[in-house]
Amino acid sequence: MNLKSYLQKKRKGINRKLSDILPRPTKYPYEIHRAMRYSIFPGGKRIRPILAIASCEALGGKEKDVIAYACAIEMIHTYSLIHDDLPAMDNDDTRRGKPACHKAFGEAIAILAGDALLTYSLQTIISANHKNFEKIAICLYNNSSTTGLIGGQVMDILSEGKKISSKTLNYIHKNKTAALISCSAEIGALSAGANLKDVENMRKYGINLGMAFQITDDILDVKGDEKKAGKKLRKDLSAGKNTYPGLHGLEKSIHIAKKYSREAAKIASSYGRKGKILTEIANFISKRTS
Amino acid sequence: MNLKSYLQKKRKGINRKLSDILPRPTKYPYEIHRAMRYSIFPGGKRIRPILAIASCEALGGKEKDVIAYACAIEMIHTYSLIHDDLPAMDNDDTRRGKPACHKAFGEAIAILAGDALLTYSLQTIISANHKNFEKIAICLYNNSSTTGLIGGQVMDILSEGKKISSKTLNYIHKNKTAALISCSAEIGALSAGANLKDVENMRKYGINLGMAFQITDDILDVKGDEKKAGKKLRKDLSAGKNTYPGLHGLEKSIHIAKKYSREAAKIASSYGRKGKILTEIANFISKRTS
Repeated sequence: MNLKSYLQKKRKGINRKLSDILPRPTKYPYEIHRAMRYSIFPGGKRIRPILAIASCEALGGKEKDVIAYACAIEMIHTYSLIHDDLPAMDNDDTRRGKPACHKAFGEAIAILAGDALLTYSLQTIISANHKNFEKIAICLYNNSSTTGLIGGQVMDILSEGKKISSKTLNYIHKNKTAALISCSAEIGALSAGANLKDVENMRKYGINLGMAFQITDDILDVKGDEKKAGKKLRKDLSAGKNTYPGLHGLEKSIHIAKKYSREAAKIASSYGRKGKILTEIANFISKRTS
Repeated sequence: MNLKSYLQKKRKGINRKLSDILPRPTKYPYEIHRAMRYSIFPGGKRIRPILAIASCEALGGKEKDVIAYACAIEMIHTYSLIHDDLPAMDNDDTRRGKPACHKAFGEAIAILAGDALLTYSLQTIISANHKNFEKIAICLYNNSSTTGLIGGQVMDILSEGKKISSKTLNYIHKNKTAALISCSAEIGALSAGANLKDVENMRKYGINLGMAFQITDDILDVKGDEKKAGKKLRKDLSAGKNTYPGLHGLEKSIHIAKKYSREAAKIASSYGRKGKILTEIANFISKRTS
């Protein structure tokens, strides 16, 4: 199967499972369940849950071993987007090609929809009842906590409009973006019951992929297409955001992004035919235009 | 031991454990860890974690069996207070006798501190590694989700300034307040390894206690002392909040609150000497003045 068909197929399976897990919009209180579904569907690239599945499959596991965790990861990613878009945070009106949650449902419901998606991620993984549950849960929430996702967002917010070091920018990108991407690949390996070395390889693959992903995102904010991105571009500069092109220039940023994705591809390709999809995802990231 | 000494002793133990679990304020990124601790300490009555311990002890368990869960409950309670106090929600400037988190740290950090406390609650319960972990986790997050705490807050927000039925007001109070109080008592029983009947009794005790607690809170907003409460009072009416005194009048509300606390006391006293503390807590709630 080529990459495009693979991504499409997995995206479909993830959306179906997410729809099964999340409460119906006809369930009381309606407004919150509608807001949760509004932000989850139709969704973006679903890169994180797809990675979890691809990594699990690369290491001999099956989609059913990891799909619940994959959905929990997407819920965490979506909750973080809802909260990040709030006026008090990044103040973004558009997300995934439509009005942000707080524009559609108001700020109060948006805050609560984020809280609810985070809570549902916990309910989802607890019900999954996997033999590696503890390791998976620790990996997921360490990477979502102040030692990961939240830590990155804190430093991103506090650094706005300030000149920061390349070390701090790396901290932001590693934690705000790469942490959850990396833990997706790691959780895939854990769900497959992989050995320590393979789990560590998937973590490293994910970190490199995540850095390539975020630096490319920074680059696309400068030279991307708004329609394709489904969100407002060219706002990093005006928002005083620290970015790779801002700190290192466009050319060097492209060079660094390619270095990270090459490193990810190298790790994946060491798994030969089994790592084919992961290798192709790494190559795709360095070429993506939205 | 009399109730006052018991509460003091348990509060001290809970605060010590919370301080051990939560990241130091000297841990990077400092601001988020400071904000989390700012909202957690010195804290309020700690009624929820104390209930979890008291219920565990009443059913033959030890404090060490439940203390991690008790702390997780307090983290969830505190995250909900931080988010509820935000300008987009209840817009409260004061909490637990000092400026609300968003007044002290700004809105963005307050939103993230709430997210972080919810995330830490899960990290805390996973590390606890209790044989009844799954039941405890399901109880905790069902009661914190849109089927509990969040559901109650959603309807509270959506009902502001509207005339609602007594059924909707009961839904709000049951979910926004009684759900987490009830699950505290239930988790105490689960941690003690209690049988189904005792777990169910503790759940019912908690629901009754929680309703008595919230109706008393409504009453105190009308006739309480701001200094003792540590927060602004007499704002339910001006905020268009639906309350028991608003819907049923003061006298009938006092009567209903007493009925709920009597019912809680009745369940607790069926455990004889072992249920003494739980009985006293129920009696205390109906007499509380702050």
